[in-house]
Amino acid sequence: MDTGCGRTPDAMRVEILCTGNELLDGSIVDSNSAWIEAELFKLGLEVAEKRVVPDDLEVITHAMQEIAARADFCITSGGLGPTPDDLTAEALARAAGVRLIEHAPTAERLRAWMESRGRTYGPSQSRQAQVPEGATVLRNEVGSAPHIQLTLGRCTFALLPGVPSEFQWLSERYVIPRIAERFAAERGGEHFAFTQLRCVGLWEADMAWAVRELPARHPGLRLGTRTAYPENHLKLRAAGATAALAASRLAAAVDDARERLGKAVYAVGDLSFAAATLAKLRAEGATAALAESLTGGLAASMLAEVPGASEVLLASYVAYTPAAKIQMLGLDPGLIEREGVVSEAVAREMALAARARAQATYGVSVTGWAGPDGGTERDPVGTFYAALATPAGVTVARHTAGRASRERVRKGAAWAALDLLRTATRA
Amino acid sequence: MDTGCGRTPDAMRVEILCTGNELLDGSIVDSNSAWIEAELFKLGLEVAEKRVVPDDLEVITHAMQEIAARADFCITSGGLGPTPDDLTAEALARAAGVRLIEHAPTAERLRAWMESRGRTYGPSQSRQAQVPEGATVLRNEVGSAPHIQLTLGRCTFALLPGVPSEFQWLSERYVIPRIAERFAAERGGEHFAFTQLRCVGLWEADMAWAVRELPARHPGLRLGTRTAYPENHLKLRAAGATAALAASRLAAAVDDARERLGKAVYAVGDLSFAAATLAKLRAEGATAALAESLTGGLAASMLAEVPGASEVLLASYVAYTPAAKIQMLGLDPGLIEREGVVSEAVAREMALAARARAQATYGVSVTGWAGPDGGTERDPVGTFYAALATPAGVTVARHTAGRASRERVRKGAAWAALDLLRTATRA
Repeated sequence: MDTGCGRTPDAMRVEILCTGNELLDGSIVDSNSAWIEAELFKLGLEVAEKRVVPDDLEVITHAMQEIAARADFCITSGGLGPTPDDLTAEALARAAGVRLIEHAPTAERLRAWMESRGRTYGPSQSRQAQVPEGATVLRNEVGSAPHIQLTLGRCTFALLPGVPSEFQWLSERYVIPRIAERFAAERGGEHFAFTQLRCVGLWEADMAWAVRELPARHPGLRLGTRTAYPENHLKLRAAGATAALAASRLAAAVDDARERLGKAVYAVGDLSFAAATLAKLRAEGATAALAESLTGGLAASMLAEVPGASEVLLASYVAYTPAAKIQMLGLDPGLIEREGVVSEAVAREMALAARARAQATYGVSVTGWAGPDGGTERDPVGTFYAALATPAGVTVARHTAGRASRERVRKGAAWAALDLLRTATRA
Repeated sequence: MDTGCGRTPDAMRVEILCTGNELLDGSIVDSNSAWIEAELFKLGLEVAEKRVVPDDLEVITHAMQEIAARADFCITSGGLGPTPDDLTAEALARAAGVRLIEHAPTAERLRAWMESRGRTYGPSQSRQAQVPEGATVLRNEVGSAPHIQLTLGRCTFALLPGVPSEFQWLSERYVIPRIAERFAAERGGEHFAFTQLRCVGLWEADMAWAVRELPARHPGLRLGTRTAYPENHLKLRAAGATAALAASRLAAAVDDARERLGKAVYAVGDLSFAAATLAKLRAEGATAALAESLTGGLAASMLAEVPGASEVLLASYVAYTPAAKIQMLGLDPGLIEREGVVSEAVAREMALAARARAQATYGVSVTGWAGPDGGTERDPVGTFYAALATPAGVTVARHTAGRASRERVRKGAAWAALDLLRTATRA
């Protein structure tokens, strides 16, 4: 969805060129592009085109020549390693009609690095010190290939390695700042401010509907939505003649959007759902224990992914079978027999037992049918019960994920369980 | 890595054209391309180039004209929905110099679909029934946009929706078979057979080194590797004048590779690691209980993702804190005090307790330092202990993940824990 006013005018044309056979035979999904596109979007800039070509010198050279003729900036990804199929620097030299020359400081750095590890600096390493004559060479402190920039006509090429950690490190230091500076100059000083509201428990269409009036109320505001099941994110970008004006316009739009979206908003910015849940519990000095059936440990694992989780997460009783519910949580076999393992009563007792046994502030449980087999007439596949036990008592809610895949049902259930913690109050 | 003999000769040039602003502003990572590239690779065919362009009629039309001048087949993704920014069919009509006309059976199907849901068939739905004059229109049974094919010069355009489920359904029925037929004809009947060996517990470089002699021993064999941390996959493709010959050559190469890679190979083909582990346990009628500390439920959740997991997985004791290890698993507080929560002794007792309490065939435990904080001089961040309890006794191994991220340490530990189950024997 895009409820805004179309793409940015062509003040500055940025293209991406990815090289690598592995990007054309299904081995790898390119994540570098989406990452830098999102960074540039925050500046107010949309990438004009992306091309992916194989490790072929002629093809890469020709693509660079085409891009040089129409773009202002070209970011390349890949082809800077030490092996013979790493051809990006050589292709750029050809496209520019210059020689490859050795960059002495890089050669020295690579030689020292190899020798410090007791290895020989050979022809494949020295390849990485070869750069097009006239290029700007910038130091890579997280890998071996240096960062190369060279301007052909009006188009600046910035060569980045395909390894995501290096791609990001070099982009943040050398590429994004340069694009930002040039873009701001060409836009006559117009500034942008960007953020996103991250929501759970709200469909994408309902989220978009709730904020439909925002662009009319906030001139220059651009909205976009993004679904990352079971979450939905609302992206907001505001414009202004100064950075401060853009920021204050963004703040006003964020306030307006939060009011319309209510407690579905779990974070403003890049915080993950688990991190937001954990931060809320930590702030109130609360601890949590889980009792998981269909999620099989997924809910606890999401919390455990966040550094410092052990201040809040005490335990999860992954009681996958009826016998485990009896052994781990002390459930009454008669209750399970009467009500069924997927039932309001079992969810309630699981949450209470988790809270009591782990001596936690909150106990949360989830039990349901993940599919493809299982289910009952009352509770078909996709149904789950999630319960929250607090110092004040226990509540249970029934959810239906419809005819979703096993993966989606389990994800939906894990998010629902953690959302009980995010919105829990002691009273 | 690519240890084979370069890319396929240009017998047939296939290109991919993706449209959508959301693919150029970082909102979405395109997964359709990698999926169909992998399917075409199995046929022996590599995609020549991929382009991503925004929802702009001029730009899409121009890209199609360029592609038509040089390719044999073009797969497009996106831009077939009912909204005004869905422009792919219109661009193809322009590129071909023909009109858009209504496809009556599609219009009828869309009208009936809307009316059966009590909604009105309006202008936005009727857009989806507009196709370039002269196009072949094929029925989409999993979505509203029909599949359109049209040949410009020698290049056939196949228009697919961006929704992955529709993209795959239509590709499998209408696109891949057509490409396969044309490619086989142009290759003079040469056939290919493809599979992959999936490995755990082996570095990519060591895997590549172990199979380095295969291409020389199996003529026409092409190898590739793929890293999906902590797994590494070896891709094999064999060629032959008949499908049977290609298949028998592939089988011989697979046998050879398996011998060299040993028990690191957990599956041949597309089986996931968790599914392979579960299948092995199910085949021997074994059950498993886990005791997880740093993985926080991740290992159990991986097993629970597989349908039918409850036949094997009984429980996981996610004992995240020392107190939980005492309460859930009955560990001796003095032992934890003396040895530390991350220790061989604690891992041993956790595995034994999980097995005994859940009455499982096997008990597996994992405890360690995920980082960024924590760790001791003896066991710095990245160290974990994994233990296996069987009817015959208990074994513990110490692992070091080095200076990896929290996510990588936790993944490495979860895979290591499940690998103990995959390779366990009762005796």
